[in-house]
Amino acid sequence: MKILRGTHHRRLLIVPLLFFFLSDFADAQSPYDSVARRIAATALTQNYTIGLLKELCAVGPRLSGSPQAAKAVAWAEKTMKRFGFDNVRLEPVTVPHWVRGPKEEAVAVPSRMRKIIPLSVTALGGSIATPKKGITAGVVEVRSFEELHALGDAAKGRIVFFNRPMDRGQMSTFSAYGGAVDQRGSGAVEAAKVGAVAALVRSMTTTIDDQPHTGGMRYAEGVTKVPAAAVSTLDADALSALLKTDPKARVRLVLSCETMPDIPSFNVVGEIRGSEKPDEVVVIGGHLDSWDKGDGAHDDAGGCSQSIEALRLLKELGLTPKRTIRAVMFMNEENGLRGGTAYAAMDRPGEKHIAAIESDEGAFAPRGFGVGDSTAHAKLKAWEPVFAFMNADRIVLGGGGADIGPLARKGVPPIGLNVESHRYFDYHHSHNDTVDKVNERELALGAAAMAVLAYIISQEGL
Amino acid sequence: MKILRGTHHRRLLIVPLLFFFLSDFADAQSPYDSVARRIAATALTQNYTIGLLKELCAVGPRLSGSPQAAKAVAWAEKTMKRFGFDNVRLEPVTVPHWVRGPKEEAVAVPSRMRKIIPLSVTALGGSIATPKKGITAGVVEVRSFEELHALGDAAKGRIVFFNRPMDRGQMSTFSAYGGAVDQRGSGAVEAAKVGAVAALVRSMTTTIDDQPHTGGMRYAEGVTKVPAAAVSTLDADALSALLKTDPKARVRLVLSCETMPDIPSFNVVGEIRGSEKPDEVVVIGGHLDSWDKGDGAHDDAGGCSQSIEALRLLKELGLTPKRTIRAVMFMNEENGLRGGTAYAAMDRPGEKHIAAIESDEGAFAPRGFGVGDSTAHAKLKAWEPVFAFMNADRIVLGGGGADIGPLARKGVPPIGLNVESHRYFDYHHSHNDTVDKVNERELALGAAAMAVLAYIISQEGL
Repeated sequence: MKILRGTHHRRLLIVPLLFFFLSDFADAQSPYDSVARRIAATALTQNYTIGLLKELCAVGPRLSGSPQAAKAVAWAEKTMKRFGFDNVRLEPVTVPHWVRGPKEEAVAVPSRMRKIIPLSVTALGGSIATPKKGITAGVVEVRSFEELHALGDAAKGRIVFFNRPMDRGQMSTFSAYGGAVDQRGSGAVEAAKVGAVAALVRSMTTTIDDQPHTGGMRYAEGVTKVPAAAVSTLDADALSALLKTDPKARVRLVLSCETMPDIPSFNVVGEIRGSEKPDEVVVIGGHLDSWDKGDGAHDDAGGCSQSIEALRLLKELGLTPKRTIRAVMFMNEENGLRGGTAYAAMDRPGEKHIAAIESDEGAFAPRGFGVGDSTAHAKLKAWEPVFAFMNADRIVLGGGGADIGPLARKGVPPIGLNVESHRYFDYHHSHNDTVDKVNERELALGAAAMAVLAYIISQEGL
Repeated sequence: MKILRGTHHRRLLIVPLLFFFLSDFADAQSPYDSVARRIAATALTQNYTIGLLKELCAVGPRLSGSPQAAKAVAWAEKTMKRFGFDNVRLEPVTVPHWVRGPKEEAVAVPSRMRKIIPLSVTALGGSIATPKKGITAGVVEVRSFEELHALGDAAKGRIVFFNRPMDRGQMSTFSAYGGAVDQRGSGAVEAAKVGAVAALVRSMTTTIDDQPHTGGMRYAEGVTKVPAAAVSTLDADALSALLKTDPKARVRLVLSCETMPDIPSFNVVGEIRGSEKPDEVVVIGGHLDSWDKGDGAHDDAGGCSQSIEALRLLKELGLTPKRTIRAVMFMNEENGLRGGTAYAAMDRPGEKHIAAIESDEGAFAPRGFGVGDSTAHAKLKAWEPVFAFMNADRIVLGGGGADIGPLARKGVPPIGLNVESHRYFDYHHSHNDTVDKVNERELALGAAAMAVLAYIISQEGL
């Protein structure tokens, strides 16, 4: 793309410029059109959001219970006070405290060669450790739990290697994730049920890279706990290739992770009090904690910085909402959901939550909102045209966010910010999730979209 | 974002999954719905496009006349033949041959301190060199040509520093570019008109970075040629701050660039012959040349790899078009447009071009198409629903591409692939434009969108 010049090029260029000009100043189709444009232009021009994100990421990865998570709490409180939010406070929540420990490694040991092949692995969150010397066992590769259970005794005493890839043909990477993540969440349980000694899971990413992507796993009552680790997609492909020619190859896995006693932490809350119905509350939030990889930039420093920025934008522009808009930085989304649960469980006399908006799908260009309540969806869909100028006007049925799930179970309509999802799983839960992967404009525009929606709901109710 | 679990979460998750399922298998609304889905799923799953882009970028930056540009021609020809395209050929075009030379540097020299301040600069494409020892002169900072001309003699013998930023508040970064790029294109001419000795231009980017962003500039008949360079936005801000406190500060600028004699090169052309009306042609293309910075990954290895992949996808899926679809890799878009001009000027007896599609706005997620012809726009707009599943259904009036401009002047409707534009000028014409900035899914989806549109036009006419 170069400079356009000459008569013809000038004419071609004028058409889109004129289009933008006209659409900027056309008669407002709703009272919120000009408000939305002011919010977006301010977000893009002042460009605060990326600064907030960098501040939060500078504390490091923020796994629940870690010193960095505590620093993130302090940062959020200080930042909300700095911007003059109302009623800034910490709400206590007790969180799990799982630590990765100093050692995690794996190698493939071919049966007929001396050479060992290092595998890029990482413990799944919540996993127990292996014995100190590790677990060395044969490997059985499967693509599904059905395939595993059909094996009978074949997995007994072995390591189960769950290697079903995310389906790259899906348009939504979240759909692809939903179609593969059972292996990570339940692989260890299903492996233990057939007598296996550990689970090795192909990383949840749509790309082929050398980074293991961690994430939550769980054990089940009455089922033996076995260690579980993610392996990079590159090494998953290598291991799979090895097993085809050498089915007797073994893997040695060493993990030193540990679950410590629960530990006190906090949700961080601040708000702009509503001028007419202050007891009706619109929550807008993200989660402060992250996995202990990269900076947790997209997951979910993005959502936190956007939620704070959304309130700051309203204050900056003098837009006092009729109902209270409350920013909530949730703790412990990744491995316990204790923050979201505690927030919803807390007794708040006289208060009524009318909506909860979360940004937790990565800080990419906003495309619209997913509304997990059909009545609310029908009402909000009428406001789609307000978001058209920022290309974020797809208000679809279905969505929300993990942290606002407990509110949703109490009847509060959950709303998730939907974004261009193609890049998300390149970074998700891995060392790749760093500040440099966030574009400042896309991040800021997400903040603007959230501010506009929260403001409309605060004025119109839901 | 973590694994969703529990009854409530499962319900929330099912809604979007069901939505995708239903929309995948709903009764087709047009004969092209299922074709479009097959094309997109194949592009994402086979993931050829990123491989093509990496191959092209591996030859290095490809400024017209450079050995790398010649290698790019050879690559394009070989690749089209490898995929079995019809009538693969080189079409000769003579191109300008400007070279940057070994030395480009600048420093600010405060009037009251011994310390000099290095400025990150790069010659603008087409600039003449400075004398070997450089040009050292006082600096006058302006934000517009009007401001410059109002200064009277004040710029005489000095360096004009054009420092009007791109307007970050614009939703389209291309609009912001259009509002600032006159400084780069015409700054040297306007500076020379008032007796200045050089032009220093704030880089065309929406972000603040330490990289100078190059790009084309031009001289005018009868106006003295003075050297012109871009300065990084970071150093533009620093220089501006210095001049506020020290208006007598000087800048020393050294450029060693040179315009060599014109040199032979080629457009590379290959096609799938139409089964019913082979003489009616839909062009689909990008440009092989790039600036001599980074890899030219987004500008425009993306458009080249997408155009080749679009044809490959149709062949892969056995979709033989009724009219000919022709991939054209244009040469010399960046500093001459000789390839686009030569393609349009060539006598092609019996042939009729019915549309030309270009991808040259970066290899980001596709949002739709810009059509630079109102009749064609009205017809194509009817196909918007076909592109909805890939979120690329905004078919707007206004657009095209530089390479297909000469075809447009002959009456061929020009169509540009429109993408999510927020990131583009972070990379554009700088060392930042490298392969790692391209997301393989977004790139592939752009190829799919082009393939679908070209196929529809080939079947339906335009």
